[in-house]
Amino acid sequence: MNFIDTAMNPAMNPAMRTHGELTLETDRRHLMHPGTHASDHASGQLDARLISRAKGIRIEDHAGRSYIDAFAGLYCVNIGYGREEMADAIAAQTRELSFYHTYAGFSNDPAVELSRRLIEEWAPPGMKKVFYGMSGSDANETQIKLAWYYNNVLGRPRKKKIIARQRSYHGSGIATGSLTGQPKFHAGFDLPMREVLHTASPDFYRDARPGASEAEFVADCVEHLEQLIAREGADTIAAFFGEPVMGSGGIVPPPSGYWPAIQAVLRRHDILFAVDEVVCGFGRLGSRTGSEHYGLEPDLMSVAKGLTSGYLPLSGVIVSERVWDVIERGSREQGAMNHGWTYSGHPVCAAAALTNLDIIEREQLVNNAAQVGAYFQARLHEAFDAHPLVGNVRGVGMLAALELMAGKSERRPFPAAAKASQRVAQAALARGLIVRALGTNDIVGFAPPLVATRADIDEIVAIARRALDDVSDALSVQ
Amino acid sequence: MNFIDTAMNPAMNPAMRTHGELTLETDRRHLMHPGTHASDHASGQLDARLISRAKGIRIEDHAGRSYIDAFAGLYCVNIGYGREEMADAIAAQTRELSFYHTYAGFSNDPAVELSRRLIEEWAPPGMKKVFYGMSGSDANETQIKLAWYYNNVLGRPRKKKIIARQRSYHGSGIATGSLTGQPKFHAGFDLPMREVLHTASPDFYRDARPGASEAEFVADCVEHLEQLIAREGADTIAAFFGEPVMGSGGIVPPPSGYWPAIQAVLRRHDILFAVDEVVCGFGRLGSRTGSEHYGLEPDLMSVAKGLTSGYLPLSGVIVSERVWDVIERGSREQGAMNHGWTYSGHPVCAAAALTNLDIIEREQLVNNAAQVGAYFQARLHEAFDAHPLVGNVRGVGMLAALELMAGKSERRPFPAAAKASQRVAQAALARGLIVRALGTNDIVGFAPPLVATRADIDEIVAIARRALDDVSDALSVQ
Repeated sequence: MNFIDTAMNPAMNPAMRTHGELTLETDRRHLMHPGTHASDHASGQLDARLISRAKGIRIEDHAGRSYIDAFAGLYCVNIGYGREEMADAIAAQTRELSFYHTYAGFSNDPAVELSRRLIEEWAPPGMKKVFYGMSGSDANETQIKLAWYYNNVLGRPRKKKIIARQRSYHGSGIATGSLTGQPKFHAGFDLPMREVLHTASPDFYRDARPGASEAEFVADCVEHLEQLIAREGADTIAAFFGEPVMGSGGIVPPPSGYWPAIQAVLRRHDILFAVDEVVCGFGRLGSRTGSEHYGLEPDLMSVAKGLTSGYLPLSGVIVSERVWDVIERGSREQGAMNHGWTYSGHPVCAAAALTNLDIIEREQLVNNAAQVGAYFQARLHEAFDAHPLVGNVRGVGMLAALELMAGKSERRPFPAAAKASQRVAQAALARGLIVRALGTNDIVGFAPPLVATRADIDEIVAIARRALDDVSDALSVQ
Repeated sequence: MNFIDTAMNPAMNPAMRTHGELTLETDRRHLMHPGTHASDHASGQLDARLISRAKGIRIEDHAGRSYIDAFAGLYCVNIGYGREEMADAIAAQTRELSFYHTYAGFSNDPAVELSRRLIEEWAPPGMKKVFYGMSGSDANETQIKLAWYYNNVLGRPRKKKIIARQRSYHGSGIATGSLTGQPKFHAGFDLPMREVLHTASPDFYRDARPGASEAEFVADCVEHLEQLIAREGADTIAAFFGEPVMGSGGIVPPPSGYWPAIQAVLRRHDILFAVDEVVCGFGRLGSRTGSEHYGLEPDLMSVAKGLTSGYLPLSGVIVSERVWDVIERGSREQGAMNHGWTYSGHPVCAAAALTNLDIIEREQLVNNAAQVGAYFQARLHEAFDAHPLVGNVRGVGMLAALELMAGKSERRPFPAAAKASQRVAQAALARGLIVRALGTNDIVGFAPPLVATRADIDEIVAIARRALDDVSDALSVQ
C-alpha cells in the first residue's frame, strides 16, 4: 500500500499544480531556449519564469510578481509594453492585408511609407534605400552580402574580408556570429569563418595603456586597425562593422575622437563602413541614431529592435547612394540580385513600425531619452562612482553599464567563477528589477524603455544599489 | 511661355496622380525589393503592383484589380488571407504581452503551448524540442550550426561538411544560400561556401537516363550520393539537407522509393538528415508534413511559412531526441550554447501560429489539401497533359508544376531568352491569376491556399489554360 497521499502532493498531482507550473514543465520538455544551458533547463535546475503580461516599463510573471524591466526586453521595447495603439494598428493591418511578398515588383503601402520615413526622417544624409528583414542578424548578414556584391560589380573580387571588433555583437548566425567578437559565440561552432577579422575594441577603461589619455588610446586603436589592414592588404578588405556604442560586449561608448579617426582610416583604404544600429537606433542614445550621435557616415546601416520596439520582428538595411549606385550597375550588367526573404517588407510588421515611429515622434521619446538619459547617467554616477566594487560607470542616454571590480584601485577583475555580474542581476531580479549581466562576468547593463520618467530612474537606480549591496559581502571575499 | 498645361498632366502634377501611383513612385525611390532587378525597378521599367487588401484566396491591388493568388503568397498563406480570428488573436496577445525574450529561463505561454502542439500533434515520432526563429532561412542556418555543434560534442571535429541537392532552395543567406543548389543564388556573392557540397536533384522527368525506370533513376541518385560521400569521406560529412518535395527549384516530387533509399545511405554513414519542411509543412502536400507524407525520420527539421500562414514571421527548428541528447551533453561539458535571436519564441508570433493551427485543425485543411489537391492534380493533367507546349505535369496535394517544352517529344527546353514561364505567369496575371515562374524559364508553379475549393481549382486551371494559350503562338516560334 502506498501511504503517501499523492492526491494532495502537488508534485504528484497535476490538478494541484498551477497553470504556470504546468506550463513550465512543458517548457522544459519541449522548448529549446536561445543562449540557455540545455541540461540545466531541461532538468529544472535553471530558475524559470513564465512572463504573462507587460505594461509600460513593467512585466509580470505567472505568479503575479512584477518587475521593472530596465533592459527593455533586449534593448528593444523603446515605447514600453502593451500600447493599445500598437495592438490596434497591427490588427487593422492584419484585417486589410495580412501578408503579401515584395518580390518582382509587388509592394504594399506600409512598407513604402516606412521606407520613406526611414530615409527622409530617421537616417543620416546620403542614405537612399531600405531592404527589409526580420532581425538584426539577418540585416547584418545582408550587409556582408551587399559588401561582397559591391566589390564584385566594381571588379575587385579579392576585396572581400570583413573587419569587426573584439567584444562586438552583430548576431549569432554563421556569418554574423563570426562578426561578433566574443569567443563564447564561436566555441562549438567552428567560428569565426575565415573571411572575418577582428580589431581592437574601443574600451578605454579596460584596454588603455596605464596613464594614456583618451586621445592616445584612440591613436592606439587606429594603429591596431592600420596594422591589420597593412598585414592583410587594403585590397582584400571590403567592410568594417561597428556598433556606434558597443552593446552586448559590455556597453562601451567610444572614447572621444574615436569615430572620426576610424572613419578617416576606412575612407583612405576604400573600406565600406557598415554601421550596426540595432541597439542604438531609434532614440536609445538620446539621438535618432548612433550615426547622428557620433557624426557617422555609413555606407550601409542595420536597424532592428527599436524599429518596432520589439512588438513584431522587423529589421532593415539602409543603403547609401554610393552603394546603391553600384547595385543598380550590377543589375544592368548581371540581372536581378537573387537575395531576399519571404517576409521582406511584411505589411503587418511595417505597420507596427509606423505606429511605433508615430509614438516615438509624438511623445518626443528621443528627446526624453536625451533628457532623462542625462539624469539617469548622473544618478548612476552618484550612486556607484564611490562604490568599492564598481570600477567604472559609463553610458550614453538610456544605455549604461557598471563594471564591477574585485580590486577597484588596481582594476583587478573578479574571477569568472565568482559570477559577479550574474549575482547582481539575480539579486536585482529578486528585488523586482531586470538588469543584464553582459559580455564578461563583470558588467551589469541597463537599457530602460525610453518612456521611463525621472521617478522610474530613481527607482531603478535605488533597487540596483540595494541589489549590489545584497551581494557585496559575498563578492568582497573574492 | 509654357503652353503645356502641366496642371492637367498627371505626370507633372502630383495632385492628379492617384495615391497608388504616388506610393509606387516612393517605392521606386526608397524600397529595395528582394530578388528584383534594381535598375529596372528604380527606373520604373519593371511592372509594379501595390497590393492593398486580401481576403480568402484573392488579393487586390491599388487600382481595384483582383487576383486569385494560386501561389498563397510564397507557398505560405495556407489558411487564406484576412481571417478575423487571426487579427483578434494577434491583437489580444499584443495587449497582454507584446514581447519578452526567452533567453536565460524566461518563457511565455504561447511559445510553450506551440512547442507542445508541434511536438505532440504535428511532428513525426522521435522529435523532442523546438527552437524558434523568424524565417526558413534562419531555421536552416540553425540546423547547420546544430549539426556542427553535435559533431564537436561527439568528438568528431572533421565531420562538418553539408550535402544539399542541386536545384534545392534553403534560403538566401551566406550559409543557406550556399545550401540552395541554384547558381543564380551564388553568382555575385562568392557562394557556395566551401563546407557545402551538392548532389543530384531527384528530377525524374529531366534528369533520368533515356528509358530508365523510376527505380533505376533512384539507384542513379543513390549512386551519385554514395560517390560524393566516398570522395569526401563519410567522416567529413555532418548532414544532408532535403526538401521532401523540392520547392523553388521547380516543384519536384521525389520519384517512388527515393527517400527510403537516401535515408538508408545517410544512416549507414551516420550523416544527420536535416529536413526542410518550410514549403511542405502544415498541410501543403495533403499530409501534416512532408516527413509524414514520405515516411521521413528527420534528425532536425525546419518549419516556417505555413506555421503562421505568413500572417507574422515565425520559424522553428524541431530537434530529435537523438540530437537533443547530444546538445544536453554539450551543455554539461561546455556550458550554455550561445546561439539565439532576440525574437526567438516571440509571444505574438507564437499566438498567431496557435490560431493558425486551430483553423487548420477545425477546418480540416490538411484533409482538404489531400482531397481538393487530388482533384487539382487531376484537373491539371486533363488540361495540360496533351498541350503541345507542356512536357510534364506534376505535383502532390496543393503543390504543382507545369514544365514547358519547346519540343515536347524530344524534351527540348525553351531558350532562356524566350522567358517562357515568365510570359505564362504574366499572361495569367493579366487575366487575374497569380502563378509563379520557377527555377528555370520552363516551370510554372502553383501552390494555392489550402482553403481553395473545387470551384476555385476549376477557375485556377481554366485561367492558367487560357494564359498558356495567350502566349502559345509567340512561344511556338521559339
